[in-house]
Amino acid sequence: MNAIEQKVRDNFGRQAFMVTLGAVMTAVGQGKVEIEVPFNPRFTQQNEFIHAGVITSILDSACGYAALTVAPEHCDVLSVEFKLSLLVPAAGERFIARGEVKRAGKTLTFCSGDAFAVKDGREKLIASMLATIMNMQPKK
Amino acid sequence: MNAIEQKVRDNFGRQAFMVTLGAVMTAVGQGKVEIEVPFNPRFTQQNEFIHAGVITSILDSACGYAALTVAPEHCDVLSVEFKLSLLVPAAGERFIARGEVKRAGKTLTFCSGDAFAVKDGREKLIASMLATIMNMQPKK
Amino acid sequence: MNAIEQKVRDNFGRQAFMVTLGAVMTAVGQGKVEIEVPFNPRFTQQNEFIHAGVITSILDSACGYAALTVAPEHCDVLSVEFKLSLLVPAAGERFIARGEVKRAGKTLTFCSGDAFAVKDGREKLIASMLATIMNMQPKK
Amino acid sequence: MNAIEQKVRDNFGRQAFMVTLGAVMTAVGQGKVEIEVPFNPRFTQQNEFIHAGVITSILDSACGYAALTVAPEHCDVLSVEFKLSLLVPAAGERFIARGEVKRAGKTLTFCSGDAFAVKDGREKLIASMLATIMNMQPKK
Repeated sequence: MNAIEQKVRDNFGRQAFMVTLGAVMTAVGQGKVEIEVPFNPRFTQQNEFIHAGVITSILDSACGYAALTVAPEHCDVLSVEFKLSLLVPAAGERFIARGEVKRAGKTLTFCSGDAFAVKDGREKLIASMLATIMNMQPKK
Repeated sequence: MNAIEQKVRDNFGRQAFMVTLGAVMTAVGQGKVEIEVPFNPRFTQQNEFIHAGVITSILDSACGYAALTVAPEHCDVLSVEFKLSLLVPAAGERFIARGEVKRAGKTLTFCSGDAFAVKDGREKLIASMLATIMNMQPKK
Repeated sequence: MNAIEQKVRDNFGRQAFMVTLGAVMTAVGQGKVEIEVPFNPRFTQQNEFIHAGVITSILDSACGYAALTVAPEHCDVLSVEFKLSLLVPAAGERFIARGEVKRAGKTLTFCSGDAFAVKDGREKLIASMLATIMNMQPKK
Repeated sequence: MNAIEQKVRDNFGRQAFMVTLGAVMTAVGQGKVEIEVPFNPRFTQQNEFIHAGVITSILDSACGYAALTVAPEHCDVLSVEFKLSLLVPAAGERFIARGEVKRAGKTLTFCSGDAFAVKDGREKLIASMLATIMNMQPKK
């Protein structure tokens, strides 16, 4: 594991909400992060689909950590905004969020992310995100 | 409690994820819904702010239920998409999401929502959402 | 006209596209700007409504200039991103975009905007925007 | 030219605003449309970049027409909403918008789009869109 992956995984380990959701970081690469969450009846909306807020949570984290892999060494990151399109209801055994950097600037990084539902071993695209993430200089 | 409020509160009671978050529906009106969630260290991101996904979850539900108050009688609703601007980090004792209908069409309802952090009894605007919600005809 | 309004109006005067659209800045206040454009058959989409791109253009400029009214003295502004909800087709004699600052930070300013169609002297809400604008330090 | 491309190009020919912008539809495929616009000093913002509203206009049309290629035979389409991330300022000799269908439903189609600036023969990604488009049944 290189230094950037270590930094990303350490930071992810401090996101208590990801632990609460049972989310796991399944891949980290240069400008790319994948986060997975299992289906859990405690995270559903009224029709027993996974709540859009859960899909948003793992996509937001996947985009944020993708941005962190390309951020200046001592920076942390903070989400500025995102937009989520919910293509189909989130039905499946587990859900994968893949975030990717589209453009890394000095202050802002733009990411896109897709979320997939896995059912019977097959992935289905269920949601797409565009996100803006800000590099945060460490406080002195 | 009138029939619409009853319908909305019954539906909200079936959103397991809202129970998991400790969210409470604190107000229901014609085209308006308010949902509140207390701070919980299990729902934080790496800097101990509440995760953007939690704020999204209560805003998405607030917008969806605001839309449900004006939907045709037998319809349920489903979120099509939303955009969230994260104005300041979510720090506070509790968080309030207020969703409101901007335009109700036959098929689609457009809502806006604001989220507030409450600290020492004072509300601070922390996030804003625009959302599109779809009326779902009951299956025959 | 105070110094800020002067700065905003000078800057607006340099947006050639606003001139091309026949857009006029009809109001400037602290954190608020209004821009108006008349109906023009050259700016329509396939059903003779005004193209969403035109409504976006005046809303984006209205939000950007609203941000400029609260930006540090020597800064210019640049749009980072926006989201537009198209509530109803843009039919009318003229169209008004009202941009407003929701939160002004050191680097980023968050704005919201509403667009209205005017017909027979009555305004109708047709579109809503959330936008993120960045303060640009002058190049040395 | 097949029947769908014919339908798309006929519809595009009725978008007066595209003519005003000098936009050309450079490619039409199943679920994919490309629209191009040359640089024009009449379409700039205050720093002589192309106005975000112009980039939005060609991306919105590219997404809408991509949706039209997969719409039921007699349907027209209407944009419901979109979000645009402005990765870098729009500087170049011409600008290409590529819209693509991510998911086509009965009522709604979700598209993504990327815009590129062309300079010295090289393309540079400048903006990304997520859009929702609605199928409109013909009026009887």
